[in-house]
Amino acid sequence: MDASQLNWLSATDAARAIRDGAISSEQLIEACLARIREAEPDVQAWQFLDPEHALRQARELDDRRRQGAPAGPLHGVPVGIKDIIDTTDMPTEDGTPLHAGRIPDDDATVVAMLRQAGAVIMGKTVTTECAYFHPGKTRNPHNPEHTPGGSSSGSAAAVAAGMVPLALGSQTNGSTIRPAAFCGVYGFKPTHGLVPRGGMLRLSRALDHVGLFARSIEDIALLGEQIVGFDERDPDTRPRARPPLVATAAGDPPMPPRLGFVRGPAWERVDKETEEAFAELAESLGEALEQLELPLPGDVLAWHRTLMEAEMAANLDLEWEKGRDKLSEPLRKLLERGRAVPALEYQRALARIPLLNDALADLFERVDAILTPAAPGTAPKGLGATGDPSFCTLWTLCGMPAISLPLMQGGNGLPLGVQLVGPRHGDARLLRTASWLVGQARGEAR
Amino acid sequence: MDASQLNWLSATDAARAIRDGAISSEQLIEACLARIREAEPDVQAWQFLDPEHALRQARELDDRRRQGAPAGPLHGVPVGIKDIIDTTDMPTEDGTPLHAGRIPDDDATVVAMLRQAGAVIMGKTVTTECAYFHPGKTRNPHNPEHTPGGSSSGSAAAVAAGMVPLALGSQTNGSTIRPAAFCGVYGFKPTHGLVPRGGMLRLSRALDHVGLFARSIEDIALLGEQIVGFDERDPDTRPRARPPLVATAAGDPPMPPRLGFVRGPAWERVDKETEEAFAELAESLGEALEQLELPLPGDVLAWHRTLMEAEMAANLDLEWEKGRDKLSEPLRKLLERGRAVPALEYQRALARIPLLNDALADLFERVDAILTPAAPGTAPKGLGATGDPSFCTLWTLCGMPAISLPLMQGGNGLPLGVQLVGPRHGDARLLRTASWLVGQARGEAR
Repeated sequence: MDASQLNWLSATDAARAIRDGAISSEQLIEACLARIREAEPDVQAWQFLDPEHALRQARELDDRRRQGAPAGPLHGVPVGIKDIIDTTDMPTEDGTPLHAGRIPDDDATVVAMLRQAGAVIMGKTVTTECAYFHPGKTRNPHNPEHTPGGSSSGSAAAVAAGMVPLALGSQTNGSTIRPAAFCGVYGFKPTHGLVPRGGMLRLSRALDHVGLFARSIEDIALLGEQIVGFDERDPDTRPRARPPLVATAAGDPPMPPRLGFVRGPAWERVDKETEEAFAELAESLGEALEQLELPLPGDVLAWHRTLMEAEMAANLDLEWEKGRDKLSEPLRKLLERGRAVPALEYQRALARIPLLNDALADLFERVDAILTPAAPGTAPKGLGATGDPSFCTLWTLCGMPAISLPLMQGGNGLPLGVQLVGPRHGDARLLRTASWLVGQARGEAR
Repeated sequence: MDASQLNWLSATDAARAIRDGAISSEQLIEACLARIREAEPDVQAWQFLDPEHALRQARELDDRRRQGAPAGPLHGVPVGIKDIIDTTDMPTEDGTPLHAGRIPDDDATVVAMLRQAGAVIMGKTVTTECAYFHPGKTRNPHNPEHTPGGSSSGSAAAVAAGMVPLALGSQTNGSTIRPAAFCGVYGFKPTHGLVPRGGMLRLSRALDHVGLFARSIEDIALLGEQIVGFDERDPDTRPRARPPLVATAAGDPPMPPRLGFVRGPAWERVDKETEEAFAELAESLGEALEQLELPLPGDVLAWHRTLMEAEMAANLDLEWEKGRDKLSEPLRKLLERGRAVPALEYQRALARIPLLNDALADLFERVDAILTPAAPGTAPKGLGATGDPSFCTLWTLCGMPAISLPLMQGGNGLPLGVQLVGPRHGDARLLRTASWLVGQARGEAR
């Protein structure tokens, strides 16, 4: 492979090549930096990037390898980190001028885990303001007039543009699945509590998730395996066996998976083209797919809104008190609403989560995964907003694992994401089902 | 021992005697029932008691022992269960006419654990209305004109009156420590999350604890060891090693324990007599005790109130909606206040708990346990209220283990409780320190 194209290697292949001595981490980082120099003026994925710092990490990892030290699973492979995830060697500014220049005292747990696995922390990717609505500077790599989606805008765009093979983001509503779909990469939101959130900007304990971006399911699994674990800083993590994401995702399902097509609670927002594309996909899947009606016992979008607004108001209390004039109007309005939520309504919404999971559990007796659009359509034109998260809301509320697969395309040439959702803690099987579906789609298409 | 006095046996001795075949469970239950017949007209500790049902359990356990089946640690020993803890074979009415005649589908986790340990579930003990303010019928066994304390009134009184050696209660503010102190028995509130609350009336996830009553620390430890564990129904329990309560409580401390006398956030309510009694106790302990100033970063009583009111409003939402006219006025007023708490204030209070624990952690570098009164004085006269819980509030809020020791007496002849508090998950060591203190107090007094 031409050394200038190394940036397009998958993380899995790059890690193997580095381990085998076929390439150095420095060469890989050089290629990624060259690609960034080329594409960043259009894409603007990075909030902070110090090429020399990235190269220093790479050279140190190369030295260690040459001295015979054991190489971690991501030895020498660069990862982009959403700028709400703490790093001690780079600022973490959370997309708000209120946190400008902030350098955390500790790495986020996932960043520490990535360093442990040998990764190069490439830089900090652009987030919307406090991972909420107000967009950052990033544009869609497929068409700079369109939004990349948000709030993990830079992570999705950087992976799509070939700047890094892997990136971390977050999801409190649709902040991983949506930008992955809009940018045409794989985006994975694991089960709530599986990946620790210590050292990540907290918006909502109930809803926050770490999100993963890559250009293949194999890479999603590889990245995922490094960051699953118990964390004293995250009260929703538990000591438990690490799910074998890589091995399971690579394996064949023992039986052909059954998928359930679900319209979801915001279906009326779907665009014509997306509806038709999914009808075609359903047809091509034949008996592997059945239509499912969701047993929704109430207004799940409203419950999510109540939780998110109330918890964001508490978690951004200090920002409100000290600098609300420096917040965007949408965020200020959200915090105002959140501050007015009664504790009773908040607790009622919290109590819905286990009940809703119980109500949906039966679905997974009939199907291996739910299939539904990742968004109402392709990335909207314009950079003033990041698109509609409502096709992700229910799954985020339930803490179920979800993955966006870049399997289709809109008439405008922009990617159209297929979302697969599995039962809680069915992460490894969901990746396997996703691999199977990708194989089916490629087989059908070619 | 005269068979009619078996009811005064400790649980530890009774279990041993039954295991050895020296007495039968039936004999023990007969003695307890005789004592109940004698004292119940004055004390009124029981909400539900079916002597035949208790005897049937005893005979079955005796049969099993005679057939050589292995005997559990509480084989044949009776335990009283507060009537907010679910039992499938007896009603659980929660002290409110709204739940009259309610028979749960499942045993509470702690009841199932007790049955597993071979205990006889003796009956259901009187609780205040929904374990809150409005008193039940129970009177103080030392003087029927005085309150037994609450909300675990019946459990404390039944153990004090020699009706059962062991009982379970609960504590959301001072509902175990206070009645134990007023009735002159040992009352123990383990670390939050150590004893599962599945199947217990939920008032507040943050504040609810299971409470334990016995007439010795040895018995508290024996009871405690049976009910510690992980419970899927209680999201605050964790799979963890069972602390060796019995062995540790029975052991000698490697060094003389150091105690810290703390006035606590409600000290201005203490009565003269109690203040003097504690000054004397402090003097007698000499260098083993030091005065400590609490580093309290705010109004902890208000934080507790906010949490309790907001969570009770959510957890008793249905009772409010369906039958608020059947609630007492104090409970109705509390729920009204709770329904008006803003989610922001509620979450702020919740977020105080870990910070408060951090602030107090340093104290336990200097001392093994905090020593403080269990209540502002002895049991108040009158049956219209159950006394002041405010000497327990801080420790309940922090989820720290606390034990009330019946070491002193007021001028009115009523018991005066000494409260010891340990660091979270220092339960076994707290029991050992308590044993040491009991030994000191007895040595000094005799």
